Amino acid sequence: MQAVGMIAEFNPFHAGHAYALAQARKLTQADVVVVVMSGNYVQRGEPAIFDKWVRARAALDHGADIVIELPVTGAVQAADQFAEAGVATLAALRVTALAFGTEHPELAYLDLARQLEKAPLMDPGFSDYTQTYATQLNAAYAKTAGITQTDPNFMLGLSYAKAVLALQVPMQLYPFGRQGVAHDALHLTANLASASAIRQRLRGGESLAKIVPADLIPVYTKQQQYGWPQYFPWLKYRLQTADLAQLRQVATMAEGLEYRFTQQIDDAIDMTSFLKRVKSKRYTYARLRRLALAITLNMTTAAVEKARHLPQLHVLGFTPAGQQYLRQVKHQVGWPLLTRVSADMLAPNGILAMTHRADRLITTISGVEQNYGRRPLM
Amino acid sequence: MQAVGMIAEFNPFHAGHAYALAQARKLTQADVVVVVMSGNYVQRGEPAIFDKWVRARAALDHGADIVIELPVTGAVQAADQFAEAGVATLAALRVTALAFGTEHPELAYLDLARQLEKAPLMDPGFSDYTQTYATQLNAAYAKTAGITQTDPNFMLGLSYAKAVLALQVPMQLYPFGRQGVAHDALHLTANLASASAIRQRLRGGESLAKIVPADLIPVYTKQQQYGWPQYFPWLKYRLQTADLAQLRQVATMAEGLEYRFTQQIDDAIDMTSFLKRVKSKRYTYARLRRLALAITLNMTTAAVEKARHLPQLHVLGFTPAGQQYLRQVKHQVGWPLLTRVSADMLAPNGILAMTHRADRLITTISGVEQNYGRRPLM
Repeated sequence: MQAVGMIAEFNPFHAGHAYALAQARKLTQADVVVVVMSGNYVQRGEPAIFDKWVRARAALDHGADIVIELPVTGAVQAADQFAEAGVATLAALRVTALAFGTEHPELAYLDLARQLEKAPLMDPGFSDYTQTYATQLNAAYAKTAGITQTDPNFMLGLSYAKAVLALQVPMQLYPFGRQGVAHDALHLTANLASASAIRQRLRGGESLAKIVPADLIPVYTKQQQYGWPQYFPWLKYRLQTADLAQLRQVATMAEGLEYRFTQQIDDAIDMTSFLKRVKSKRYTYARLRRLALAITLNMTTAAVEKARHLPQLHVLGFTPAGQQYLRQVKHQVGWPLLTRVSADMLAPNGILAMTHRADRLITTISGVEQNYGRRPLM
Repeated sequence: MQAVGMIAEFNPFHAGHAYALAQARKLTQADVVVVVMSGNYVQRGEPAIFDKWVRARAALDHGADIVIELPVTGAVQAADQFAEAGVATLAALRVTALAFGTEHPELAYLDLARQLEKAPLMDPGFSDYTQTYATQLNAAYAKTAGITQTDPNFMLGLSYAKAVLALQVPMQLYPFGRQGVAHDALHLTANLASASAIRQRLRGGESLAKIVPADLIPVYTKQQQYGWPQYFPWLKYRLQTADLAQLRQVATMAEGLEYRFTQQIDDAIDMTSFLKRVKSKRYTYARLRRLALAITLNMTTAAVEKARHLPQLHVLGFTPAGQQYLRQVKHQVGWPLLTRVSADMLAPNGILAMTHRADRLITTISGVEQNYGRRPLM
């Protein structure tokens, strides 16, 4: 059986995602589509609007054959680390093709990545404190490889290519155009934009007709939603009581931000006002939001390191074809394949310790257990 | 001017406390009554029902001349440490008399303490895991010094005497009987019991007539109340996300309790149910409640140690006589006398860092700033 992989968040799953899954299958003539999907926390630094099981179910019902969880330690990271975690997971599952939607399907991503590899990109000049890292990265890309595109999905595709080279895994890339996605009044031309528009509509109680597959609409309207409004009081409490040494242990903490965060939290009334208070030219909102989430989840550098050394494949669900594929590869996969989570995996030194830490908060909010004893969706 | 000291919590201030302040003055013929009062957190391991300013105001209006804050690092401790922190504070203020109410005013407390000092009390036999520390301590007292009383205020008096000896400070003890306290239907015979009865009445919206000085009744009914119901969600969040190494840094954490606490928190719906789940024969409820509070406040062993090396006298208020006393002694006091709190005192390495950490939560709940820029009540 041939498999094609996708790296996704489905936050939430919508018609554009169904189109993308179909494209991936069509382009590669694969028998199964394997999705590595962010768990309960997403790359932009917030809890996913619906839990991972709801999102996995939607994907399985609309074109995915296997959904594997991308752990919080890989998901809540800058694009390069996010891409690397996703590519590594697919490679561990013996998937050798990766499809992705992009504004520029015509480009040769691996070639571009090779050009970047040759040049010393991270030169010491990356110390302009008046510009974000992303801006400086784009400038360096332009200088080194003549890359002047900065569209978000193009950039993510480039991160995939860089990850393939860095990890030295056998992985063909299959970029495809996103023009199939509903060109309606919402201008849902990009994946991210449309997911964000849907979240807004969901929070505003507006209609999702045509944007979301019809069968998902009743599911979405009755689901528990998660977001910063629930998490902000925890962030505030934590910043008010943590000592600076503890904050410095948090993954992606940068020099000085621990002071800025602890000083600005008292008068912030919600996440938006807090982010405005801590924003500087040096850091993007996404970077700051991810850091705030890492603080809230107590996702320390040590926890990220530990997760890197204890990788695993947490199977959220599969179709019959997906099951067949898993049977085919199960003796070749390099990482533990988890289809049922036991208590020892969730223990402080267990393989899912950080996932459990982060997901306990989801359970506190909704009462829905996220790991222990749960079997893959079929 | 002669001063008499008292160590108190006033949680909340009631008629029995007014009687005690009058007794202290009468017994010693002192010109001023100096009270060292727990700040926003009390010895039984919870936030005081009213903030420190409300309680200090009540005391100043009913017999106290000076109210000094007993910091959270001294207040949220077992009786011996609580007593030691209080006695040390009075001694730093050049107070050489300490009055306290007790069930046994006829006993010679310093003599009893001296007898205990002679005997090796903390023998290795303190390892009976089927009994609380308090029970074993009482048995050791009985064996060593023939002390068979275990009434709470007697025990606290003994702790004061032990502290006077341990700190080698000049301090006369003035125990007095508590029989003046209203023998009404509530059986408010002991200070703690009556404070607890009043808290119950306040929470139930019942009448406080005769139990509380009349002028305080309208104050109490309109005040913001604090308690575990507000703090429990923070405790739960913290236990769900902290790693074990961080929990082991918390003051008074004992071997194994970090596991018990983190395992039992998920299904606990409030503080009462949580304490029932973690209770064992080895630990009293008060001990476990204090530990839970220390976790919530992130009161680490390091923070307690730092506080011990950076003592201070935070003046919450004084009468004209109290002010005169402070002027008289201000060049002799060994610790910084704080009458106005500046930002640097609240900074992470400031003299009030731990107080600020704990009090920020009070401000989050009520919006009432507890330290910065506040001047003593007059």
